[in-house]
Amino acid sequence: MEATPGTDMSDLSIASRAVIRPISEIARLAGIPDMAVESYGRYKAKVDPSLLTARKDRPGKVILVSGMSPTPAGEGKSTMVVGLGDALTAAGSKTMIALREPSVGPSFGMKGGATGGGYSQVLPMDEINLHFTGDFHAITSANNLLMALVDNHLQQGNSLGIDPQRITFKRVTDMNDRALRHVVIGLGSVTDGVPRETGFEITAASEVMAVFCLATGLADLRARLGRMTIGYSYAKAPVTVDDLGAAGAMALLLKDAIKPNLVQTIGGTPAFIHGGPFANIAHGCNSAIATNTARALADVVVTEAGFGTDLGAEKFMDIKARYAGCAPDTVVIVATVRALKMHGGVTKDELGKENVAAVRDGLPNLARHVSNIKKFGVQPVIGINQFTLDTKAELAVVTQWAQAHGVECAVADVWGQGGQGAGDLASAVLRTIEEPSNYAELYELQLPVEEKISTLVREMYGAAGVEYSAKAKRVLEQIHANGWDQLPVCIAKTQYSFSDDPTLLGDPGGFTLQVRELIPKTGAGFIVAITGTLTTMPGLPKVPAAMHMDVDGNGNAVGLS
Amino acid sequence: MEATPGTDMSDLSIASRAVIRPISEIARLAGIPDMAVESYGRYKAKVDPSLLTARKDRPGKVILVSGMSPTPAGEGKSTMVVGLGDALTAAGSKTMIALREPSVGPSFGMKGGATGGGYSQVLPMDEINLHFTGDFHAITSANNLLMALVDNHLQQGNSLGIDPQRITFKRVTDMNDRALRHVVIGLGSVTDGVPRETGFEITAASEVMAVFCLATGLADLRARLGRMTIGYSYAKAPVTVDDLGAAGAMALLLKDAIKPNLVQTIGGTPAFIHGGPFANIAHGCNSAIATNTARALADVVVTEAGFGTDLGAEKFMDIKARYAGCAPDTVVIVATVRALKMHGGVTKDELGKENVAAVRDGLPNLARHVSNIKKFGVQPVIGINQFTLDTKAELAVVTQWAQAHGVECAVADVWGQGGQGAGDLASAVLRTIEEPSNYAELYELQLPVEEKISTLVREMYGAAGVEYSAKAKRVLEQIHANGWDQLPVCIAKTQYSFSDDPTLLGDPGGFTLQVRELIPKTGAGFIVAITGTLTTMPGLPKVPAAMHMDVDGNGNAVGLS
Repeated sequence: MEATPGTDMSDLSIASRAVIRPISEIARLAGIPDMAVESYGRYKAKVDPSLLTARKDRPGKVILVSGMSPTPAGEGKSTMVVGLGDALTAAGSKTMIALREPSVGPSFGMKGGATGGGYSQVLPMDEINLHFTGDFHAITSANNLLMALVDNHLQQGNSLGIDPQRITFKRVTDMNDRALRHVVIGLGSVTDGVPRETGFEITAASEVMAVFCLATGLADLRARLGRMTIGYSYAKAPVTVDDLGAAGAMALLLKDAIKPNLVQTIGGTPAFIHGGPFANIAHGCNSAIATNTARALADVVVTEAGFGTDLGAEKFMDIKARYAGCAPDTVVIVATVRALKMHGGVTKDELGKENVAAVRDGLPNLARHVSNIKKFGVQPVIGINQFTLDTKAELAVVTQWAQAHGVECAVADVWGQGGQGAGDLASAVLRTIEEPSNYAELYELQLPVEEKISTLVREMYGAAGVEYSAKAKRVLEQIHANGWDQLPVCIAKTQYSFSDDPTLLGDPGGFTLQVRELIPKTGAGFIVAITGTLTTMPGLPKVPAAMHMDVDGNGNAVGLS
Repeated sequence: MEATPGTDMSDLSIASRAVIRPISEIARLAGIPDMAVESYGRYKAKVDPSLLTARKDRPGKVILVSGMSPTPAGEGKSTMVVGLGDALTAAGSKTMIALREPSVGPSFGMKGGATGGGYSQVLPMDEINLHFTGDFHAITSANNLLMALVDNHLQQGNSLGIDPQRITFKRVTDMNDRALRHVVIGLGSVTDGVPRETGFEITAASEVMAVFCLATGLADLRARLGRMTIGYSYAKAPVTVDDLGAAGAMALLLKDAIKPNLVQTIGGTPAFIHGGPFANIAHGCNSAIATNTARALADVVVTEAGFGTDLGAEKFMDIKARYAGCAPDTVVIVATVRALKMHGGVTKDELGKENVAAVRDGLPNLARHVSNIKKFGVQPVIGINQFTLDTKAELAVVTQWAQAHGVECAVADVWGQGGQGAGDLASAVLRTIEEPSNYAELYELQLPVEEKISTLVREMYGAAGVEYSAKAKRVLEQIHANGWDQLPVCIAKTQYSFSDDPTLLGDPGGFTLQVRELIPKTGAGFIVAITGTLTTMPGLPKVPAAMHMDVDGNGNAVGLS
């Protein structure tokens, strides 16, 4: 959720006063036949993609929204997706947007929701930020059913010979709960399970979430679930979900969740919000099914990949587009004067003061994001998300730089004006997607894993090299031995820096990336490389956002942001 | 789910071939205005009770369905609720039924769903047995948000002085997962939480579920959540959810879940399915809000309390009706010839053979259930759930006993014939509720807790006395010290016997009940007394039902029973 520039109106209060139309109207607007729509309340629906036949031969163009490296100043990427979508609708394009579902855990911690802000929000904001249509819960259930079956297998004789010390899969909860990072389970008596050390991850970081978001249909979902590796046998052979016979029951728990969720923006643009992996510790894009269903309905689809081009956008192209064939026709890089100033060395307290030099000093960060996108053969567009205190001179630094480097660039005020504030950006995007792109992934799958990683970190992060921990080296051997070399890589890295050190802003370059852990996700279909001190289970802050949340006397939400 | 007498048709196949009407039609039939209905898919809806005003002054009569002590032969209580409801509808009474929601955990373990069986089912059976409208997930989230806040409080300085060794509240999961019964959390480094021993319960056993089911509205829900005790301070004072400031956020997570879920029976009777606490380890009835909303709409409401009169029915009257004012006008005691035979000493393998003497030998079990209900001033009706292999002579043993003892009794074939099979039972019930009842709870709240317990176990179970463990005695002192004596008691006991030993069938009498643990549930508003070896977290069997579940090529459920 965005900061609130120069006004005391909260996102929740703007959202609750916005005009919202029945979801059946939005479905008709999107060209979805009634029989494919299942309402969940008045303003949400699940859409069955198998009941859509129209125009699968001529899919809509994909506008991917990414950003520069985020800072505590906020960059407003989801807000830009919504504002740009509404601007494209206003410009007469048949448009849909596709976003990730918010995770409940972070909403009750620090972050707030993920439904845009101001006059660029998706509605109904409160319902989307709470349980929505239950997809995260279904994913949590499927994951934890699997783990109950794994531990029950140990308890009931362990016929597969699973080594309890080598179970890599974990239980999940959609909650920021640091006390569950490292746990010992199976204590008590002989009927209370086999004792072993394990931990919980947040649902958004789980492989089931990744599988959910990369699957192209229910059959593919079931097959990917079955290919997930839960650990290793005493003979050190991988044990899969199919070995346990659990893929069917897991798919059953996901059969409705896998249908994309239809909602609307404040401007009335139909929106799919579906699936929500984090972009630092996972691949960071909404479901492939939602993106492809939107492309079957609309001429242009505006979608988001989490954090900067080094994280979400790279993974969108090297993982999601590779599996699901939805390569972007352009990438909008969201930049803010405030973020540029922070990359240029200004502290958060000093952001209110004009500082043209600092904006200029922050440009190397933006420049690397621009060049990252070009490396995929895709032409980027810079979208400056304007804040109230930005000065003309500061904005001019960015637009002049863009012009000098031959990159389309437009200023947008999406928070305050919604789609009306993004007319120039919409024009720049439409000009750009008229040209065919020369899209190609960054690396070939047949390269060894180490080479894929070194290519990626050199080209995207500007790293000089990679160092593997002893543990990671052992897993590399395992990867070769098990024939998993052909998988793409998914690097888990801080979003704040191109490096693995969150304090190195701008475009640090020349650093050595530390790969602490490698985790083969054989169902999702990628090898996760964990760098730095990243955790797959966030904690709560000293005063969690939950402390300010409540319901009023009419049953309405209070304190969601 | 019931056994399938003399046919190879599964409940799922009958359910999937049944004619199902759009939920808007069912709502209109029930007299629910459109504005109060929020559809969840085509065949489920949430109903907002605050938007119903009609006939609150003349609430419908309550028919509570209970049973004799269950056996592995199955008694079919939910099936009888549905069949009786459809029979009452067919007899011209404006009828609604109210049932508990199934828990996902047991469905994937051994038990199957809880939506009736054969031609007496609620629809859509597969959706109700999977995530339904997400209520269990919302309860799980609210519970686990609370626990994340508790452990975060310890981590962030522990200003309330909570003793980590005296935290009584646990995390929950809606899964049979024995390995989570006893766990150590907070391991790892200093940022990974404060190490402590704890455990997980199944969601259906949680106090949040009990609060959800006893609350009379959203404000009462929030107040009850706030009164829950999460543990004790170093000074041994109780620490509540309100002390932590977490009740608002929890209520926010439950604000939509608390609205009752409308579905339909195969016979077209409107049904609320809402809330699902177990009846052995919790209070075992659907939500008070659902029961009272049904009473505001219909002339007769058929509802269920789990297991025998010693468990669900006793708790319905001494806890639920006391708090929510929905005392039953009659109680149907479901009996089967098969269960009587098992209580009469026959093993499961021998059930197929006629055995009139064994039926007679099993009658003492039924007799105590009948007398239990009469002790509340309520006239019971015996409903014999007929199975294919029951003989005339066996059935006659029961009907003659009932006649001799002045109890209404009717044979019903609800599995095979639906409502048409329960015409006699419906007539018996309608005759009985014409007479006013002399309803009164079994004990007064001002009695000391020990006296409430001894009254209950003497009157309901036929116990000679109660023995408290040293641990339970310490909690008794705590209860007196904290002024919690005024609360009713909720005894957690095996469903298979009136005693705390599941192998003592019939009407054992004269035993001493062992109270192992006492747990004050200050939000739900009762003191749980745990007897025998009951656990609040079930385990999975050697071959879990999940192994047979799947989705077919059209996305339909396979293997749900």
